Amino acid sequence: MNNFSYKNTTKIHFGKGEISKIKEEIPANARVLITYGGGSIKKNGIFDQVIDALTGITFFEFGGIEPNPHFETLVKAVEFARKEKITYILAVGGGSVIDGSKFIAAGTLYRNELWEIIETNGAHIKEAIPLGCVLTLAATGSEMNKGASITRAETKDKLFFGSTHVFPKFSVLDPTTTYSLPARQVGNGVVDTFVHVVEQYMTYPVNAKVQDRFAEGLLMTLLEEGKKALITPEDYDVRANLMWAATMALNGTLATGVPTDWASHMIGLELTGLYGLDHAQTLAVLLPAVWLYKKEQKKEKLLQYADRVLNIKQGDDEEKILAVIAHTSQFFTDMGVPTRLQDYGLDETIIQPIIEKLEQHKFVKLGEYKDITPDDVRSILKLAL
Amino acid sequence: MNNFSYKNTTKIHFGKGEISKIKEEIPANARVLITYGGGSIKKNGIFDQVIDALTGITFFEFGGIEPNPHFETLVKAVEFARKEKITYILAVGGGSVIDGSKFIAAGTLYRNELWEIIETNGAHIKEAIPLGCVLTLAATGSEMNKGASITRAETKDKLFFGSTHVFPKFSVLDPTTTYSLPARQVGNGVVDTFVHVVEQYMTYPVNAKVQDRFAEGLLMTLLEEGKKALITPEDYDVRANLMWAATMALNGTLATGVPTDWASHMIGLELTGLYGLDHAQTLAVLLPAVWLYKKEQKKEKLLQYADRVLNIKQGDDEEKILAVIAHTSQFFTDMGVPTRLQDYGLDETIIQPIIEKLEQHKFVKLGEYKDITPDDVRSILKLAL
Repeated sequence: MNNFSYKNTTKIHFGKGEISKIKEEIPANARVLITYGGGSIKKNGIFDQVIDALTGITFFEFGGIEPNPHFETLVKAVEFARKEKITYILAVGGGSVIDGSKFIAAGTLYRNELWEIIETNGAHIKEAIPLGCVLTLAATGSEMNKGASITRAETKDKLFFGSTHVFPKFSVLDPTTTYSLPARQVGNGVVDTFVHVVEQYMTYPVNAKVQDRFAEGLLMTLLEEGKKALITPEDYDVRANLMWAATMALNGTLATGVPTDWASHMIGLELTGLYGLDHAQTLAVLLPAVWLYKKEQKKEKLLQYADRVLNIKQGDDEEKILAVIAHTSQFFTDMGVPTRLQDYGLDETIIQPIIEKLEQHKFVKLGEYKDITPDDVRSILKLAL
Repeated sequence: MNNFSYKNTTKIHFGKGEISKIKEEIPANARVLITYGGGSIKKNGIFDQVIDALTGITFFEFGGIEPNPHFETLVKAVEFARKEKITYILAVGGGSVIDGSKFIAAGTLYRNELWEIIETNGAHIKEAIPLGCVLTLAATGSEMNKGASITRAETKDKLFFGSTHVFPKFSVLDPTTTYSLPARQVGNGVVDTFVHVVEQYMTYPVNAKVQDRFAEGLLMTLLEEGKKALITPEDYDVRANLMWAATMALNGTLATGVPTDWASHMIGLELTGLYGLDHAQTLAVLLPAVWLYKKEQKKEKLLQYADRVLNIKQGDDEEKILAVIAHTSQFFTDMGVPTRLQDYGLDETIIQPIIEKLEQHKFVKLGEYKDITPDDVRSILKLAL
């Protein structure tokens, strides 16, 4: 096991009805900015629950935070928060709203140019307005971590930053808030969670038994529960298991003491930035291709996953590994997230622009060995056509 | 899954050499009280590493904190800390030293009678001196939680308290510090960890898939690594896996959203208080007896554990459950911790005094159903003879 440091300060309130706990967390004299996305929370009753919990507290609203939240939009929110002297941000939504709200929380108190937050990966953030979350989509894990992805629409750059100052102070996870999600978002959420787990697992073994078993437990949970969420959307336990799995997948626990990959994520950022694919769609396309391209380096863990999670016992190592990749791709497809670039109307003409963006962003040494160069990415993208 | 709230603020520094990180955590102007137990840390080099890390910082020492730390000893430490105007406590040891240090941390700033902390289960604690830990024994999980067990030697009462104010600010977990432990403490630590896991798992199912898989992963890790620690004490990975398992077993993660038992612990407290058995010895004796006595109520989870962890596939349900109990008892015995009261020279004469202590402490409704009465404890203890 590798050395590591770990700390996670977010408080979780989990379960049906827990939105009411907001009032225990936000000071009565706060000036709250409720941030949200396209406004579905105003149709499904979630907004009303939030307002009820804020009775007696001053609040403002900032809606319209897009999927892959735009820097341009968030700058407006920062201006609004400064003008209204906001003292607490309450993000109500999925990963995009929460990521955007982390930017607003840090940006409002930031002294320099706001884009510098992204350029420096959050390194100069010294403070942030406290942030609370009401999660409405199980996927990104942003509700219990310090990271955020932000997109500059103007230049098609999807990038990210992180800071301990933007750990949510609290997050409410009520599985019933996810009942009314469209199937596409449910499927995306399961695939996103799945790939978060394997980015921290499918590397090379370092004999970290607890972390491996935890990762495998999450993968089994996703494989067992994922499809049920599409078939019976209002099954509480299914939604609860998927929601807690998504949070545990990216709150730092799995990454303790192990190497991590993240190549699929880094290439995927460019795919979303340039061509607008959903985050999970990029992962479903890239992960099987990365595994195929790196199957020798990842052999031991691919076989461990075959044995412990997928129960693949037949065939030689090569056959097992191909079965693993086929099985995992099929799971993504079953979740409604196809795994080929052509499924999204893309062909080999996208390869060169992606390579150029990766080089521009200096993402030129990817993967757990830092050995995936732009040339390797070219090969990986060809495998994903 | 049941509703839950979860928060854990302790920072972990894990791995060989991490004791040096103390200097990043403790302010340079602090007045530190180093707390420890019998003094083994002065023979095995750990104390020297701690002193190196504290170069330039004012520190004092308070040694002699016993296993099952005595209230009477801790009161002296509180007096010392008040006199020397201590501003940081640094516990160097296992669970007893850390538990005792939590009491010192809260007690030094406590305005009322110190015993009230125990009597009120910590409910009136409003502040505590910051506490850091250097863990030298993987067992209790105290390094990353808010609980502590304290014994009043005079009256043979082993009780406990908890408070969010005594969460360690940081804990250093260096597996090499455990190399020189006596076999008895290693075995005790594995059994203690094991029972912590099953107290939060072996109850009734609530379809909490992530928590179940995490618990099973920890149990598999303990079953795989436990005996190795006795055979090859200086195997880093074995010690690292056991250390991280012990911390994860009782940092709140497993208890999220599930019923918990703790009957073996509650009865075990009295066994230690009255007869001086090691904490893990009491658990090794009581757990198999509780499972046997409650095998109908725990049937579904016992069978899940049989299937997923122990790979017991033969026999009918009753046979599987008896095999589970036999297998688990054998594991404890293999770890050097026998599972019968007679193994510790105790017979049925202990039953009545234990019952009386439980009644005195009002521990009269135990287990996940709160249905284990003193009469049931009598039956359980008979099964453990």
